[in-house]
Amino acid sequence: MSRRCVIFAGLPVPSKLCADISSQDVIIAADAGWKTVRKLGLSPTLTLGEFDSSPAPEQGVVLRLPVQKDDTDTHFAARKALEMQCTEVCILGGIGGRLDHTLANISTLLFLEKHGVRASLRGENAFIRVLLPGEYEFTARENVYVSLFPMEGPVRGLSLRGFQYSLEDAALSAEYPLGVSNEFLEQTGYISFREGTLVYLECDKDR
Amino acid sequence: MSRRCVIFAGLPVPSKLCADISSQDVIIAADAGWKTVRKLGLSPTLTLGEFDSSPAPEQGVVLRLPVQKDDTDTHFAARKALEMQCTEVCILGGIGGRLDHTLANISTLLFLEKHGVRASLRGENAFIRVLLPGEYEFTARENVYVSLFPMEGPVRGLSLRGFQYSLEDAALSAEYPLGVSNEFLEQTGYISFREGTLVYLECDKDR
Repeated sequence: MSRRCVIFAGLPVPSKLCADISSQDVIIAADAGWKTVRKLGLSPTLTLGEFDSSPAPEQGVVLRLPVQKDDTDTHFAARKALEMQCTEVCILGGIGGRLDHTLANISTLLFLEKHGVRASLRGENAFIRVLLPGEYEFTARENVYVSLFPMEGPVRGLSLRGFQYSLEDAALSAEYPLGVSNEFLEQTGYISFREGTLVYLECDKDR
Repeated sequence: MSRRCVIFAGLPVPSKLCADISSQDVIIAADAGWKTVRKLGLSPTLTLGEFDSSPAPEQGVVLRLPVQKDDTDTHFAARKALEMQCTEVCILGGIGGRLDHTLANISTLLFLEKHGVRASLRGENAFIRVLLPGEYEFTARENVYVSLFPMEGPVRGLSLRGFQYSLEDAALSAEYPLGVSNEFLEQTGYISFREGTLVYLECDKDR
């Protein structure tokens, strides 16, 4: 059975990103994320954090984490999503603030994907997934650049179709940003690769 | 002989980052970066770009690049810095805008380091280097978080001293953000590792 978890990280979340959240979703508020959840009128399944940047909420299930710990709050939330057997995780409020947080959240996407969970980071101006070897289809969106970055060493056997710059059985290496600022050319963009890990990033052109 | 190149990428550059630029430095303006260079009263050694986001300057050495090309403007500038036998490259105006540009610029840092050039990205709120296996010393700055991310698969034999969270012969993997949000504890932070590639990131706490 499919089950989605929406994790609210610490940054503000534009309401357009929350339009499809339903009562079927598991909602985890990570640290300051609970304020966003409350503002949206949602009830979190779980609120967790060290609450060093904001006070803990007074209602609902709250898990207080130590300040000195190895997991980021968002990574801990991802572990909880796994425990709750969620099959999909969407992280909101986790891109566009401090770069260290954004990069840590991309790590968490990889962690989830390696555990068989389809995971994404959604921000006001960007959308990120981490892809393991396989075949993928992405529906074109207007006014976005699509970029691909290898995350764990070289990506091999990479083919792109439906994009302005297409590739056939190509390689991407971390030291050369060949995959940056591509664009959808058709209704669907096809990405497949044989080896490595890819960061898939859509950035709005307006920024 | 040491020779530094300062590359101005497209984003605005706070003047505090330019305080140490001298007439000895090679200055390359990439695309819209030439406006920043002009505003600062500097004379670029070379201005290059496709000039799709801003008109080309009318003075100085200008290299016009095709719009459809594999290199980003900043990566092309890095190649030019190599041709000019620069031993150090500092990229300004390349962090904090679109995330795809920031990640592409981190790729360019790795490219330069693999060619024996010490390279850094400096922004208003962040400082980035890419480290190859070896021993490094970083002078502590106040109010920054220091984060480490593996860039090409696992980093092994990693030791940290002088930081709040120290490590001894540890491993970092891309799927777990263990290296995020560390802090200087002493005047100098020591980082050494045996295998892999590390992104070293300082982020200001104020953001």
